[in-house]
Amino acid sequence: MTTPALSAMQPGDPAVVLLSGGLDSATCLAIAQDQGFEIHAISFRYGQRHEYELDRARQLAELHAVRSHRVVEIDLAQFGGSALTDPGLSVPKHDSVEQLGGEIPITYVPARNTVFLSLALALAEVVGSRDLFIGVNSLDYSGYPDCRGPYIEAFETMANLATKAAVQGARPLKVHTPLLHWTKAEIIARGLELGVDYSITSSCYDPGPGGTACGRCDACLLRSKGFALNGIRE
Amino acid sequence: MTTPALSAMQPGDPAVVLLSGGLDSATCLAIAQDQGFEIHAISFRYGQRHEYELDRARQLAELHAVRSHRVVEIDLAQFGGSALTDPGLSVPKHDSVEQLGGEIPITYVPARNTVFLSLALALAEVVGSRDLFIGVNSLDYSGYPDCRGPYIEAFETMANLATKAAVQGARPLKVHTPLLHWTKAEIIARGLELGVDYSITSSCYDPGPGGTACGRCDACLLRSKGFALNGIRE
Repeated sequence: MTTPALSAMQPGDPAVVLLSGGLDSATCLAIAQDQGFEIHAISFRYGQRHEYELDRARQLAELHAVRSHRVVEIDLAQFGGSALTDPGLSVPKHDSVEQLGGEIPITYVPARNTVFLSLALALAEVVGSRDLFIGVNSLDYSGYPDCRGPYIEAFETMANLATKAAVQGARPLKVHTPLLHWTKAEIIARGLELGVDYSITSSCYDPGPGGTACGRCDACLLRSKGFALNGIRE
Repeated sequence: MTTPALSAMQPGDPAVVLLSGGLDSATCLAIAQDQGFEIHAISFRYGQRHEYELDRARQLAELHAVRSHRVVEIDLAQFGGSALTDPGLSVPKHDSVEQLGGEIPITYVPARNTVFLSLALALAEVVGSRDLFIGVNSLDYSGYPDCRGPYIEAFETMANLATKAAVQGARPLKVHTPLLHWTKAEIIARGLELGVDYSITSSCYDPGPGGTACGRCDACLLRSKGFALNGIRE
């Protein structure tokens, strides 16, 4: 008895891309498109204080002419526990990127990437996709556990046991993390090569009115450093 | 250097229990309570056509005097692909339990347990729990991939890499599945021992007005058989 051949990815295959509206996910979207995938983008209104990023996600989806874009409502704020969703907690501010420490910061949202990837998995199953893209990054990041390689591999293993397609012998589901080992500067450099319009993207955890970046949260500092290393001043 | 001792469960430890309002999750709740856990119940309004089950979940939570009960809104119907969430698809009906086949039925909801467990994981992290309870069952069930042992083990592995508690050296998170290898009749027998009031629970996938069970969907047929084997006619 021979095992049925599992065909490789074909150009035009559907991929589900997690699109936050930030620079990482915008780059990830461009990379997936460059690899020939047809994109189903998924964004989340999860109670984040920086909800304006969803407008940026919509603009990016439109600009990249994705096949579909869904904004899924899931209120993670009701659980609390994070400065990103709890107005009673302050987003930490720093004067320079060197002050970012090794601790998991209060901006960590409990199980966020697991919830997001699970919903992306549900969408993938419905649109017949075996490819998820997520712009996690383990280097220039804040030490979140759900942005690391071993976590992503474990999610992939679980996903391949979770779904109807998996047990019916489809090509194994793959969680693509093209940015995982890149610095923020390398991410931006690749995005620029692919023509990403970073003026649309947003990164700030604690924006002012109209989405003005605070310039001093972890995300702002890492972003500025990344652009500076590419010789760009935003 | 010694590894810090990971303490075992202590009476009164918090556990997160997935509570649908059906008989499996009601039994699971009673078992968790019998083991000495303090219960944080979580239910989902996910676009199911049998939403009346949420009223049953609320009654069960109240009767069992749980520490907290949350009903989380997550619209899986927007993805489609299941007779449980898509009014355009019919719930299959049968004349007897012997007609239930080996195929994964149209009532399968894409990635449902993965989405539910992920949200339970987020809640567990916030309430400081290392114990999730889910009433999945691989015997008298309809062949759903996300109700099997290897899937649950893979989820547990992933969860232990996903969260802040995990990387900070807390007791490993455990996904408890006390019903996994029991028949429906065994589940009911154990629940009766523990005093579960099954008149509150509901199982039907396609109820009529007021939550009247159809009597002919997979869930109704499995439930009736389980009660009949315990000498009970509902």
